Amino acid sequence: MVSKLSDVAELAGVSVTTVSRVINSYGSLSQKTIDKVHAAMRELHYQPNAMARSLQGKSSQFIGLIFPDIQNPFFTSLANEIEQILFDKGYKSIIATSANNVEKEKQYLEMLAANQVEGIITSSHNLDIDAYSNTYLPIVSYDRFISDTVPIVREDNYRGGQLIGEYLLKNGAKNILMLSGDSSSQSPTTKRYEGFTAALGDKVSLSIQEFNSNSWPTTSEIDVIVNDVIQQNIDGIYAYNDIMAIQLQNALRKAGKRIPEDIRIVGYDGSPIVQLLHPDLPTVVQPIRQAAQRLIDVLFAEINNQDPVVNDVLPITFYNPK
Amino acid sequence: MVSKLSDVAELAGVSVTTVSRVINSYGSLSQKTIDKVHAAMRELHYQPNAMARSLQGKSSQFIGLIFPDIQNPFFTSLANEIEQILFDKGYKSIIATSANNVEKEKQYLEMLAANQVEGIITSSHNLDIDAYSNTYLPIVSYDRFISDTVPIVREDNYRGGQLIGEYLLKNGAKNILMLSGDSSSQSPTTKRYEGFTAALGDKVSLSIQEFNSNSWPTTSEIDVIVNDVIQQNIDGIYAYNDIMAIQLQNALRKAGKRIPEDIRIVGYDGSPIVQLLHPDLPTVVQPIRQAAQRLIDVLFAEINNQDPVVNDVLPITFYNPK
Repeated sequence: MVSKLSDVAELAGVSVTTVSRVINSYGSLSQKTIDKVHAAMRELHYQPNAMARSLQGKSSQFIGLIFPDIQNPFFTSLANEIEQILFDKGYKSIIATSANNVEKEKQYLEMLAANQVEGIITSSHNLDIDAYSNTYLPIVSYDRFISDTVPIVREDNYRGGQLIGEYLLKNGAKNILMLSGDSSSQSPTTKRYEGFTAALGDKVSLSIQEFNSNSWPTTSEIDVIVNDVIQQNIDGIYAYNDIMAIQLQNALRKAGKRIPEDIRIVGYDGSPIVQLLHPDLPTVVQPIRQAAQRLIDVLFAEINNQDPVVNDVLPITFYNPK
Repeated sequence: MVSKLSDVAELAGVSVTTVSRVINSYGSLSQKTIDKVHAAMRELHYQPNAMARSLQGKSSQFIGLIFPDIQNPFFTSLANEIEQILFDKGYKSIIATSANNVEKEKQYLEMLAANQVEGIITSSHNLDIDAYSNTYLPIVSYDRFISDTVPIVREDNYRGGQLIGEYLLKNGAKNILMLSGDSSSQSPTTKRYEGFTAALGDKVSLSIQEFNSNSWPTTSEIDVIVNDVIQQNIDGIYAYNDIMAIQLQNALRKAGKRIPEDIRIVGYDGSPIVQLLHPDLPTVVQPIRQAAQRLIDVLFAEINNQDPVVNDVLPITFYNPK
């Protein structure tokens, strides 16, 4: 049985108007009231959005996409696939780039609360937004931990890391550098590190550097890495995405290194445009079309008050140029 | 003086409701009625959108972006810039990829007529849509002729073509291939051809091939070009965009040609990501940030019933790798 607004109000011991205000973050409310209403909503598995839509009489047919940077070809491609699948369902896509812009991301969440969009698909890196944990609205995340209440569609990050490790070992790398783009211990992407180190075992030397994957590395950051790579005789690099891998490939060739003969560099993502323009780059290919479809399936399950299924991981493949 | 709905109705000799139906393409109407209303709107320079918004009491704060393919880095970057400038104005961007999909484009135009979006920024290649010429709604185009009623923000296409011609001549090319992506005689991009041939004069041999720039060339299309280039001893290529240029560069290197020593290949667009990943590609750099700002200025002039200013061309630059 689907719970009603009045059930929540009764259990929380407040008026229906108060519940509505909590849901829409409207008016001044005490933290105690907010907590009581949230507790009642949790207990009753109450889904406010369906109510809001049915009150409104019709749905907005808009879905918000929040990605850190659509100029990163992986997110361009994911946004492109999502836009096309949504269009075929009669939905339009509203796009937001959120890199380092917490305020912007909050505004898009407010659109959701105000029923201007029916749901949000995100892969934001702004992980510290409290707003998410207080929301019961239809949101789905790709490969990022957002909050306990937001389901995650994930690719097989562990296997991705493992395949990179196996590739570097098989090609004789002994002195390996991992450039890591994500230090959050709760996001699925950290599994890449686990798979990678498991594959390497203690057969090789491994050093790790962390980067802010919200922005592209500057020329001087690349110069510092190139210098380190040459000084330390690095012969295998796991770059955190294809863009980073190609930048390093260019810079190391300019510094006189032969790629791949002297140094193996592996990327991550495998977007169609990078595959088209850089057929010489070994990389982990994410299942972008499949990810788009699954994100939409999970989001619409939430919108329709069904249980979203997100227990599995989407399979990745390793692209090894011949 | 700004015309009112009733002025149009009076001049056309129909009711206010009929005018409203014509504007919103709603209900069954004879072609004769439609024509009469359009004639009256033209005569009075009537702008329906402002009226519709004032009736509605508030604006939607949504702008539609219609681009052929956001996976093309030029359009990715343009969409990204537009999204950020619009966000700072309190507007959200609805994105549509329209390549070869006339139906989709029509649906987005209908959103505009129905006031779900306040304006549309387009660079669509679907030039045969009648719907545009019957509309008086706020639309602006980037570098494409859409209809007589849609203003065009354009870059200096003539100068772009000219600089490519000068570069190829200066580097000793004598047997040149131009790969052209646009055969429409009404779009500003055809000026590239004029500038290019003017720069070349009759000093060299020039052959031209046309492509559908709505989709990326297939591997077999690239193979055919590579074969022609080798058979005909081509030593200079003007590719219609950077993607095509990089694909040819890769394929010709694989076929044993030295680039740029044996064959000079020049691209067009110069998006930030291509500049980052392919610093060795000579190309015409379009002023993407400036184009985004101008498109928005022109669109908001239309929305606010001011005269949009689009007489000038935005300056391009030539990137010559050292």
